[in-house]
Amino acid sequence: MELLLLNGPNLNRLGKREPDIYGAETLADIESRIQRLADESDITLACFQSNIEGELINKIHDAGDREIDGIIFNPGAFTHYSIALRDAIASISVPVIEVHISNIHTREEFRHTSVIAPVAAGQLCGFGTAGYDLAFQAFLLKRKERPS
Amino acid sequence: MELLLLNGPNLNRLGKREPDIYGAETLADIESRIQRLADESDITLACFQSNIEGELINKIHDAGDREIDGIIFNPGAFTHYSIALRDAIASISVPVIEVHISNIHTREEFRHTSVIAPVAAGQLCGFGTAGYDLAFQAFLLKRKERPS
Amino acid sequence: MELLLLNGPNLNRLGKREPDIYGAETLADIESRIQRLADESDITLACFQSNIEGELINKIHDAGDREIDGIIFNPGAFTHYSIALRDAIASISVPVIEVHISNIHTREEFRHTSVIAPVAAGQLCGFGTAGYDLAFQAFLLKRKERPS
Amino acid sequence: MELLLLNGPNLNRLGKREPDIYGAETLADIESRIQRLADESDITLACFQSNIEGELINKIHDAGDREIDGIIFNPGAFTHYSIALRDAIASISVPVIEVHISNIHTREEFRHTSVIAPVAAGQLCGFGTAGYDLAFQAFLLKRKERPS
Amino acid sequence: MELLLLNGPNLNRLGKREPDIYGAETLADIESRIQRLADESDITLACFQSNIEGELINKIHDAGDREIDGIIFNPGAFTHYSIALRDAIASISVPVIEVHISNIHTREEFRHTSVIAPVAAGQLCGFGTAGYDLAFQAFLLKRKERPS
Amino acid sequence: MELLLLNGPNLNRLGKREPDIYGAETLADIESRIQRLADESDITLACFQSNIEGELINKIHDAGDREIDGIIFNPGAFTHYSIALRDAIASISVPVIEVHISNIHTREEFRHTSVIAPVAAGQLCGFGTAGYDLAFQAFLLKRKERPS
Amino acid sequence: MELLLLNGPNLNRLGKREPDIYGAETLADIESRIQRLADESDITLACFQSNIEGELINKIHDAGDREIDGIIFNPGAFTHYSIALRDAIASISVPVIEVHISNIHTREEFRHTSVIAPVAAGQLCGFGTAGYDLAFQAFLLKRKERPS
Amino acid sequence: MELLLLNGPNLNRLGKREPDIYGAETLADIESRIQRLADESDITLACFQSNIEGELINKIHDAGDREIDGIIFNPGAFTHYSIALRDAIASISVPVIEVHISNIHTREEFRHTSVIAPVAAGQLCGFGTAGYDLAFQAFLLKRKERPS
Amino acid sequence: MELLLLNGPNLNRLGKREPDIYGAETLADIESRIQRLADESDITLACFQSNIEGELINKIHDAGDREIDGIIFNPGAFTHYSIALRDAIASISVPVIEVHISNIHTREEFRHTSVIAPVAAGQLCGFGTAGYDLAFQAFLLKRKERPS
Amino acid sequence: MELLLLNGPNLNRLGKREPDIYGAETLADIESRIQRLADESDITLACFQSNIEGELINKIHDAGDREIDGIIFNPGAFTHYSIALRDAIASISVPVIEVHISNIHTREEFRHTSVIAPVAAGQLCGFGTAGYDLAFQAFLLKRKERPS
Amino acid sequence: MELLLLNGPNLNRLGKREPDIYGAETLADIESRIQRLADESDITLACFQSNIEGELINKIHDAGDREIDGIIFNPGAFTHYSIALRDAIASISVPVIEVHISNIHTREEFRHTSVIAPVAAGQLCGFGTAGYDLAFQAFLLKRKERPS
Amino acid sequence: MELLLLNGPNLNRLGKREPDIYGAETLADIESRIQRLADESDITLACFQSNIEGELINKIHDAGDREIDGIIFNPGAFTHYSIALRDAIASISVPVIEVHISNIHTREEFRHTSVIAPVAAGQLCGFGTAGYDLAFQAFLLKRKERPS
Repeated sequence: MELLLLNGPNLNRLGKREPDIYGAETLADIESRIQRLADESDITLACFQSNIEGELINKIHDAGDREIDGIIFNPGAFTHYSIALRDAIASISVPVIEVHISNIHTREEFRHTSVIAPVAAGQLCGFGTAGYDLAFQAFLLKRKERPS
Repeated sequence: MELLLLNGPNLNRLGKREPDIYGAETLADIESRIQRLADESDITLACFQSNIEGELINKIHDAGDREIDGIIFNPGAFTHYSIALRDAIASISVPVIEVHISNIHTREEFRHTSVIAPVAAGQLCGFGTAGYDLAFQAFLLKRKERPS
Repeated sequence: MELLLLNGPNLNRLGKREPDIYGAETLADIESRIQRLADESDITLACFQSNIEGELINKIHDAGDREIDGIIFNPGAFTHYSIALRDAIASISVPVIEVHISNIHTREEFRHTSVIAPVAAGQLCGFGTAGYDLAFQAFLLKRKERPS
Repeated sequence: MELLLLNGPNLNRLGKREPDIYGAETLADIESRIQRLADESDITLACFQSNIEGELINKIHDAGDREIDGIIFNPGAFTHYSIALRDAIASISVPVIEVHISNIHTREEFRHTSVIAPVAAGQLCGFGTAGYDLAFQAFLLKRKERPS
Repeated sequence: MELLLLNGPNLNRLGKREPDIYGAETLADIESRIQRLADESDITLACFQSNIEGELINKIHDAGDREIDGIIFNPGAFTHYSIALRDAIASISVPVIEVHISNIHTREEFRHTSVIAPVAAGQLCGFGTAGYDLAFQAFLLKRKERPS
Repeated sequence: MELLLLNGPNLNRLGKREPDIYGAETLADIESRIQRLADESDITLACFQSNIEGELINKIHDAGDREIDGIIFNPGAFTHYSIALRDAIASISVPVIEVHISNIHTREEFRHTSVIAPVAAGQLCGFGTAGYDLAFQAFLLKRKERPS
Repeated sequence: MELLLLNGPNLNRLGKREPDIYGAETLADIESRIQRLADESDITLACFQSNIEGELINKIHDAGDREIDGIIFNPGAFTHYSIALRDAIASISVPVIEVHISNIHTREEFRHTSVIAPVAAGQLCGFGTAGYDLAFQAFLLKRKERPS
Repeated sequence: MELLLLNGPNLNRLGKREPDIYGAETLADIESRIQRLADESDITLACFQSNIEGELINKIHDAGDREIDGIIFNPGAFTHYSIALRDAIASISVPVIEVHISNIHTREEFRHTSVIAPVAAGQLCGFGTAGYDLAFQAFLLKRKERPS
Repeated sequence: MELLLLNGPNLNRLGKREPDIYGAETLADIESRIQRLADESDITLACFQSNIEGELINKIHDAGDREIDGIIFNPGAFTHYSIALRDAIASISVPVIEVHISNIHTREEFRHTSVIAPVAAGQLCGFGTAGYDLAFQAFLLKRKERPS
Repeated sequence: MELLLLNGPNLNRLGKREPDIYGAETLADIESRIQRLADESDITLACFQSNIEGELINKIHDAGDREIDGIIFNPGAFTHYSIALRDAIASISVPVIEVHISNIHTREEFRHTSVIAPVAAGQLCGFGTAGYDLAFQAFLLKRKERPS
Repeated sequence: MELLLLNGPNLNRLGKREPDIYGAETLADIESRIQRLADESDITLACFQSNIEGELINKIHDAGDREIDGIIFNPGAFTHYSIALRDAIASISVPVIEVHISNIHTREEFRHTSVIAPVAAGQLCGFGTAGYDLAFQAFLLKRKERPS
Repeated sequence: MELLLLNGPNLNRLGKREPDIYGAETLADIESRIQRLADESDITLACFQSNIEGELINKIHDAGDREIDGIIFNPGAFTHYSIALRDAIASISVPVIEVHISNIHTREEFRHTSVIAPVAAGQLCGFGTAGYDLAFQAFLLKRKERPS
């Protein structure tokens, strides 16, 4: 069973960037914590972060071609305008769980809408970096529902 | 430790109502499943469902007065217009986790916005009835973050 | 064969309330007139009015559970914002005929749209209190179309 | 007593056109059925259909000049933009009953509004071709209200 | 002479709820203060608060039937969407004075508009809980204008 | 020198139609009055009215082909949506003076905008049927400006 | 008989200012031309121009108090936002004819609407500086309609 | 203790202007009535009205520099667009009570919003000219809240 | 094999009308060029142009009844508002290729949207009168895809 | 003569991706088919696809610097938001033909508008992958119009 | 060489007014600093501030008539609605540099747009009172570009 | 002291691209001119241009990590939609001065708003390529304000 943890623009600066909004953990901290969870469940985890929209698209295509079992995706600012990422997700059959660290509904109005959400399997926001852990739980729960 | 599982209008018809959108489980099924999870964690769980906005407000006030530890709330259709429920949540200090069974972003446009979300601790949608389980996990994770 | 005549907020004040818009008949007058029509057609009629959204939802659920043959519904002001009532109607398979006494299109702009209409079997407005009679005829015509 | 049954653009293709939306009956079927109802009530019925906006306006003017007793009008697509038809109706004192076969509120958003409705005596939609029969009943009921 | 002091959802939590917005006084404090003012002016005062929209409607109907002399009404969050309350007020001839504790124009945009205001005799906001006193003065001034 | 007096839909009903908005004069009255003014100035006048958009377009094309000196045009309801008439006017070099009997800015909001105005030489409204006389004066003044 | 020719901001720069839009005539040229027309008709003419909104309001009040026979008013840029001027006009019973030199409908979108128009007796635009002459004719025609 | 009663454009025409909207009292009547109330409370009152936005701004600056105790302000039409007045009020620490004679919410839509309200201490409307008396009471009540 | 070349309002003036936008070719030139292409491919071509919306609808109905193989349609200004033409196209199974001579996206904003496009088989614009040739090629390519 | 066939994000997944919308052909199939057409016309063809907006911009710059004869461009999702691509096209004099495989007007509303179209030489959509062939024909036709 | 430093409403209160937004310098401080810069460059400087829109218009007209070399203009709140000031600037050929002390894009949404900007030579904001110095540099740089 | 001169998409084509909008200077010209200014002030300057959004984000992150003293940034078309760039700037404490060569307020409406501006230290536009010099002056002035 294989899972991709995908992070979009500026998430490489987690911990350094506006800690009142995003918390003090770094992306490396999160990735190693999810790695531990994956190890416990015998899941192969790959982690990838990029500030370049097209590189994220390429990773999503690759995941689709290899038919992995799921993607946990924090699209960062691309959430609000990257129709190209939306189309990439729509073009694969791998379920994508969309996660946001902050509560996007308490911030600027343009952050309230997600062009990704309509093609995501589910969305969660506002749980801080613990949102990645919940997304991992969601992945496990989604897997159980499927016939083996 | 005490938790309230609160459900809004029409959720008493889960299982009977549009199974392609909401799944085949009944509300009683969900409530007993969350009860088991609560028992395992030594958490006192109360469950309440109403189709009357004001009764939900009363329950939220009561939870605030008694300073319980959290509320998992599926506001149903009230999500989209009940500013009174929003004000009720804003008037208490108990964290509220907003959950939706379906992916509200793939449905009619008026379902894409939530007047509740800006006062919720976090929001999740699209995970089917498993969303309640995730909300329970979220409640546990939120608790851990707090100083004992 | 069973029919429910359901009236929403303020319709208990028909006759007293703004007669230039709503006419001089009271709700009791209308209910007894429709009762006579129902008697003539051997239809069991139940009448219910409430100013409380949730009580109307409960009645709709009950009609759905008992699988009655139709509902004639004047949602009053709830027409314009009660998504909870819309969801209640969508959750049952009983056909609902939406009726308005006044021509909602000649009044304030917010009265021109109905959140109920997309889930109603049909809608009629502007015929005064005779609209209830027409709705009854519509119910009969709809019945004929169905295989017995 | 005289009544005009007026149909706008594309309604000459009823039965041939999108039967899932408009049903299998032809316009001729409807016109002869309403003719029978008119005969039973000793009402002179005239039927007219045109795809040309101005010809419909001419008919409405003529009905106004001759002071007939009512018009049942399905304006088809003109419902949504023909202010000229609206003005024609406003310029006569003959009551016009607006009828739509389909539930316009479940279709494309531009079909939800009617520029005709504010000058119509009443409006009904969603009852299939039985809507014409109801409109005829509405005409009779409206007549009764008036002093002879 | 009779006056109704009517309060909508969440106002039972005044004093407990967000004191920076609503002040430290409780609803009981306000009601007894207005009671004293009423006593001084030989006015019979009734006080009612509810979180249930329909119960407020019922009270308004009752005041209309009994033809009392005025209503001071803080509709709370219902200010912004309860067309049913608006219709209830429009259906009676008792003047209604709309009062808000906070300055609704400095808060979220959806709080800037009131569906109640167009049917109110007058509106005031931003004076804290002293707004109830002003509303009482307004009631007295309004009374004077009328022929006895 | 040649002038066309062109009138759009429903203007054949002037005098019969809503006299509080449009006055008591008939179109024939106006046409003969403008004829007298034209005679005094040795101008050939043609008058045309139609309820059919395409016939008005044909007349405008014809005027363009024959290079007459001006058109006085009351487009009636077509003012607000007939882009086809706008394009017809844009396709000729004959100046078109747009006239409205009523003050379109005091009526329904959809009457406040004219799709014709951007291609008209000038526009006037609100002067009652005297607006046609003013349009005739405008035509004369416009002529004077041009080199003979 | 008395008439006021009133001009708003920047019209003192006519002739100097953007001649392709406004023509080469100065305001003095126009005022003396209208003076000649007034003399021929035995009408007392007063002319006033100001760049200060409040001074124009004062003039309008004065005209209202003195009950003169009409105002020809080019409000310049105030056309589009001065509700204060609109209210001034609404507060008097003297008819105001609104005139614009350019065709405001072919310019920036914000110039297409006039807050003055709904309280004006009539409006004309696009006839260049000849629009003032037409407005004078309109004034004469309007006078004729009134009983002496 | 010092108070400024400030009135904006067209309010000098109170009594003459549209009495059905604004009542029959003149501004002088109101000013002398408020003067009597001020005398009774040992408050120095200054009254000022202008149709010129900048003169009102100057008065507000002056009140701010002299640190008087309050301003009662009816901004008239400037309510709806004078951001300059808003900024003037924001630049002083004197509390400003905004008053409107008519119920602005029952009039044209552009009158429903106030650019002044977000910087006002409180707002009241719809109480006729008695609104000034209420504003005076509000001023007294506001004073009491402050530490001496 | 049979093809209809259909042109809407004002296209009869091609060549005469605004050559900088539409080019110097006449409609007759285009029709004879497409005729030659049709002859080469053994396709029966019919050409029709009208300024009357209803006549175009009639032609589309006729093409639908006779089940011809395709329609190349330039709806002219009707592109932007004729829902009646849209419904006519939706009511037949003949594929319709929508063509515009100019690039509608570089012109006025109201020309950017087409009510016809959602029911067209394909759309092309901006290729000048060569767009008709391309539409013909598109027709041939579409035919090849179908099973013979 | 030189032509560039440029494809934007996700078009590398043609054939794999949503075949009901985009068909079963791969991008390689299309490129080799257009290569054959280019060979027949002695045109040098270059093909390029990227998911990275900036790489597409670079290619467009390069084509502009080398002054090739045309670009056929399917911008994919960038159609709807990449103003940077629009500016790149505006900065070169090489004509760009915009092509879309699906009928963008029958899909989500955000796909109905193209920020690229105003700077494209022409646009075509809805012809499936045959749209590329038509674009090639369009390129040839455009070339003919130019003086050699 | 001559330069006008023009300041709009409320800028006379700089230093007193909201120092967190506008800084602690007074307008006199700024004017004397720019005077020194002007002296160093042998430029005649005139300074003017007014809260009255029409007085600013008069100054701009005067600058235009005297053909001075430039205007540095902070329009204050007039930035957002004074089309009259915009027209005044458009009516002269003197270049106007628009300056704002605060970053208008981080404040209320209505401050994000400037009706002045489209007729300004350039705009700068967010640099505090140093913005005036930069505007002076901009004036010098603009001068250099011109042929002497 | 260290400064980064950052340029976004298409700015590598300055001089080649639309010289009427952007002038004849190349980016290299600008960079060497700013280099000279930097040398004079003993400032280390780095220059970077990219058409790839993510590469610009990387440079901004790097500048933030190295805590340089300022960034002059012309985001080109990204100004209008790259929320990712906005977030990158928000994530660092280095002040960013936003510069545009053209007056964005006289171009297409979508160019009037900047998603970057709310996180920029200041913004300037419309000064041609001299805007970079002004931005450099702004950088120096900003530095002076800070404590050394």
